[in-house]
Amino acid sequence: MLGNFKYSNHTKLYFGDNSLAYLHGELEKYGKNVALVYGGGSIKKNGIYDDICKILNDSGKNVAEIGGVMPNPTLAKLREGIKIAREHNADFILAVGGGSVCDYSKALAVSVYCEEDPWEKYFIRFEEPECKIIPVGCVLTMAGTGSEMNAGSVITNQQTKQKIGHVFSDEHIMPRFSILNPLYTMTLPHYQMVSGIYDIFNHICEQYFSGEDDNTSDWIAEGLMRSLIHSSLIANKNPQNYEARSNIMWTATWALNTLIACGKSTDWMVHMLGQAVGGMTNATHGMTLSAVSMAYYRHILPFGVKKFARFAVNVWGVNPDGKTDMQTAGEGLSMMEKWMRELGLVMNISELGVSEDMLKSLTDVTLIMDGGYKKLDRDEITEIFRESL
Amino acid sequence: MLGNFKYSNHTKLYFGDNSLAYLHGELEKYGKNVALVYGGGSIKKNGIYDDICKILNDSGKNVAEIGGVMPNPTLAKLREGIKIAREHNADFILAVGGGSVCDYSKALAVSVYCEEDPWEKYFIRFEEPECKIIPVGCVLTMAGTGSEMNAGSVITNQQTKQKIGHVFSDEHIMPRFSILNPLYTMTLPHYQMVSGIYDIFNHICEQYFSGEDDNTSDWIAEGLMRSLIHSSLIANKNPQNYEARSNIMWTATWALNTLIACGKSTDWMVHMLGQAVGGMTNATHGMTLSAVSMAYYRHILPFGVKKFARFAVNVWGVNPDGKTDMQTAGEGLSMMEKWMRELGLVMNISELGVSEDMLKSLTDVTLIMDGGYKKLDRDEITEIFRESL
Repeated sequence: MLGNFKYSNHTKLYFGDNSLAYLHGELEKYGKNVALVYGGGSIKKNGIYDDICKILNDSGKNVAEIGGVMPNPTLAKLREGIKIAREHNADFILAVGGGSVCDYSKALAVSVYCEEDPWEKYFIRFEEPECKIIPVGCVLTMAGTGSEMNAGSVITNQQTKQKIGHVFSDEHIMPRFSILNPLYTMTLPHYQMVSGIYDIFNHICEQYFSGEDDNTSDWIAEGLMRSLIHSSLIANKNPQNYEARSNIMWTATWALNTLIACGKSTDWMVHMLGQAVGGMTNATHGMTLSAVSMAYYRHILPFGVKKFARFAVNVWGVNPDGKTDMQTAGEGLSMMEKWMRELGLVMNISELGVSEDMLKSLTDVTLIMDGGYKKLDRDEITEIFRESL
Repeated sequence: MLGNFKYSNHTKLYFGDNSLAYLHGELEKYGKNVALVYGGGSIKKNGIYDDICKILNDSGKNVAEIGGVMPNPTLAKLREGIKIAREHNADFILAVGGGSVCDYSKALAVSVYCEEDPWEKYFIRFEEPECKIIPVGCVLTMAGTGSEMNAGSVITNQQTKQKIGHVFSDEHIMPRFSILNPLYTMTLPHYQMVSGIYDIFNHICEQYFSGEDDNTSDWIAEGLMRSLIHSSLIANKNPQNYEARSNIMWTATWALNTLIACGKSTDWMVHMLGQAVGGMTNATHGMTLSAVSMAYYRHILPFGVKKFARFAVNVWGVNPDGKTDMQTAGEGLSMMEKWMRELGLVMNISELGVSEDMLKSLTDVTLIMDGGYKKLDRDEITEIFRESL
């Protein structure tokens, strides 16, 4: 049954090749002191940085820069940003980049005025902020995490080697607006593009492979997956195809903005396995997910055969005639694997720098979720990591 | 290609069998003077009215009632409501009912402080309000129109026999919150339930059958249609099935809250034909749509064969092997007709009170849209109405 839930998402989205034109009007709604957050500097090469600085300048903003946010934003970097934003008395945070920059900006938004240690409060105790939250706006340059329209944030503690995500309940942590220009995603290397595509796909899987209920959310999820598979194959061959890249960008947003989790249970175990790998290797997020996915899904398939068979038929077009659910389900996963290999995703964790002697510590740091078709024990986690080597 | 667009929808939704519990907290955010809008009085029979009056009373509200809003809310009724709301100095409008009550409340929200004639301004000239807009909240008792999460309103002018809808751009016209309790829809007669189901389905069709682009919105639309067909067949046999009724209610909201129109063209010609019938006969909205649909879609099929073939395969599971697109497309429409007949929908306009001598005036009042696969001329409109007799 469709469980009880609340849906509220007030992020305003400007989508399209002209969407930056709306930044000026949005900035007018917020205070003068802006913290401009960005990543490794690619926005300086492709011109986006200059365009945005001009708009900030024309809007009369007083800007402090927090550059160099890394793909897995660290707690140390967060502490550095808190110091800058405090000294600048920031009224507004403008995130220009991909999911990491957006995640980081949201963590910053709830930490600048937080009197406790933000790592302990938000990522260990998973508490909500009680302090003033600085509003965040986003100019997205990579499709994948969905961070542009949700209240989630993932931070890595390099000392403890923990990469932990927190989806906040407080809707004020969602970006007030996000500017989505598919052209901005086109300068990404192929490796980053397909990594983002798999991140999107896996977000949908994490919400889909849970529960036995009949739920509209699962039908929407199937539509999103079909759209993504279709567009990914076009973009894989021709990354400059605007139609495919724009559909991928739009799918990413809806894959993780709470809609397809409405009224149902969710899994998120692939993300826990992937984040354990990410915390230890600093590998690209989407690739940590792809590298553990097939071993995980084949492991849990027997506990959710009906859903995996539905996935095979409704998403991959497997013809179920004359087959058992188990056969149909297995065929679906084979088609998924074939698609993943065609995109050139990383299919094992060895390639990401994991060796057999790391399996024990990887297993130890993996958080165990219980919303999937089988709650894993530590031995099963080790087994899945070994299968993924 | 996915066109440029803005997406912004801040209606907060409380969904589930306990959702009325959130009304008190929402009411606290608004002023003391509440205009309580409802329909023909069914909420007095099923106890919803008493529950809501208790909450309004406990919240210390000063309530003026605007009851008796009819299924096709009239301009005369709107003028009556404006007078009551003005005299009451209403700070807030609480709509308790189905789409008509919600549509009416939104029209009221932009009319109370409007200095011009609201019919001329909003429904003839399709202008946006410049006056103060009274905030609206909604407790939904019927699934269908999607009015609970959009800025649309349909009003009927009985003098001119015009039924006209306006989808406002100003997002402040969307309800601030909507309470969706599937149990509230269960006391509806079967005729109203299936009428609502077809209204939902047709909303999706109107947005789907337009454009040749590859667009994520169309894949989401297919997911929604499949979910709706599936749940409608369960609810048709067992209207008390909570799971089916809740999925139908949730699908209705997403079928018409702007999401699946993002970045694409849309049609809305079935609604124009249906509204012409509705304006002249006062028939139930969903039935006016079902009664003209098959003639319309069979008429435009040759101009959008590819999309109709996709509809047949992706929504109805038609096997396209060895068939022309035309054959596949035709099979899809036949399956749709079979489903409509199984639900017991009205399949011709004679049953709604239209006779051959009314065809000319029906044709004359029909607004012509140009987003579909074929822009109709007046002769084609007459032909479609005649086919629908």
